[in-house]
Amino acid sequence: MKKVEDYVRSIPDFPEEGVIFRDITTVIQDAEGFQLAVNEMKALLDGVDFDIIAGAESRGFIFGSPLAYAMEKGFVLIRKKGKLPCETVSVEYDLEYGSAEIEIHKDSIQPGQKVVIVDDLMATGGTIEASIKLIESLGGVVVKVIFLMELAGLKGRKRLSGYDVASVITYEGK
Amino acid sequence: MKKVEDYVRSIPDFPEEGVIFRDITTVIQDAEGFQLAVNEMKALLDGVDFDIIAGAESRGFIFGSPLAYAMEKGFVLIRKKGKLPCETVSVEYDLEYGSAEIEIHKDSIQPGQKVVIVDDLMATGGTIEASIKLIESLGGVVVKVIFLMELAGLKGRKRLSGYDVASVITYEGK
Repeated sequence: MKKVEDYVRSIPDFPEEGVIFRDITTVIQDAEGFQLAVNEMKALLDGVDFDIIAGAESRGFIFGSPLAYAMEKGFVLIRKKGKLPCETVSVEYDLEYGSAEIEIHKDSIQPGQKVVIVDDLMATGGTIEASIKLIESLGGVVVKVIFLMELAGLKGRKRLSGYDVASVITYEGK
Repeated sequence: MKKVEDYVRSIPDFPEEGVIFRDITTVIQDAEGFQLAVNEMKALLDGVDFDIIAGAESRGFIFGSPLAYAMEKGFVLIRKKGKLPCETVSVEYDLEYGSAEIEIHKDSIQPGQKVVIVDDLMATGGTIEASIKLIESLGGVVVKVIFLMELAGLKGRKRLSGYDVASVITYEGK
């Protein structure tokens, strides 16, 4: 029986030499691969008491949205600056080159709500760290952070220490 | 019992005077609203014979992905230029101000595959028209296009004439 990682396409030396790019499009465009991926992420939430799922634009939407649907929860969008129509809070964070700014609707999370953050990939953890800041600024409690894949060599877990982090697939490298 | 449209937040005079912005974040962040929205979109596909779902970045992911999961199909990403790691075909199209370019992996759709396109909103239909071009250039057959909402006043249906188009909610205005 195939495992989720069998559906991931690995592209050596992309976008630069020495890096292996992990392409999820081959997981999701395969009906069985996609079921497997969402169901294994769902299994990471077994026994977790939570109210709502949040995901960051745009690959966080690909897994956060079906998980919210499958678990009959609401789904909160974290978007790039300027795309949400109502009042927001925003946070700027550093990227390898330059910086990015993401935001969330102020009324999207109620104080005390237990939030699960979903994304496709944990690399350095920068986007997730910024997402946590946004959720906590609204009084939300981040009870779990789950990923389909994790690049352990980039030490995102260290950056997210203090939070409950889990991944379906762990790659040792970068 | 509440209907999907009861969860949509309407913002008058945004982004400009005379336009009513239809905000879906209030639909998806509500557990019941989100179930209702995805299930009503699913109902639009009752009896439709198709192989795979496609959605365009990034709001097409929010509904396309849970629909693909719920219907046990694969999900194909149509993304903004430069974000897909393997060989792509791309198409440029006009926006109200300027233009945009979207692309699809060449190997994501096989010739003869029956494709359903999913998006949150049909406005002028420009992004969907471009998405259809991409899918057809790979030999895919677009059997249905579904939206959560449709702004009938912008005449997107005229632009997509010849295709089977359906929406859960129709707003008469722009």
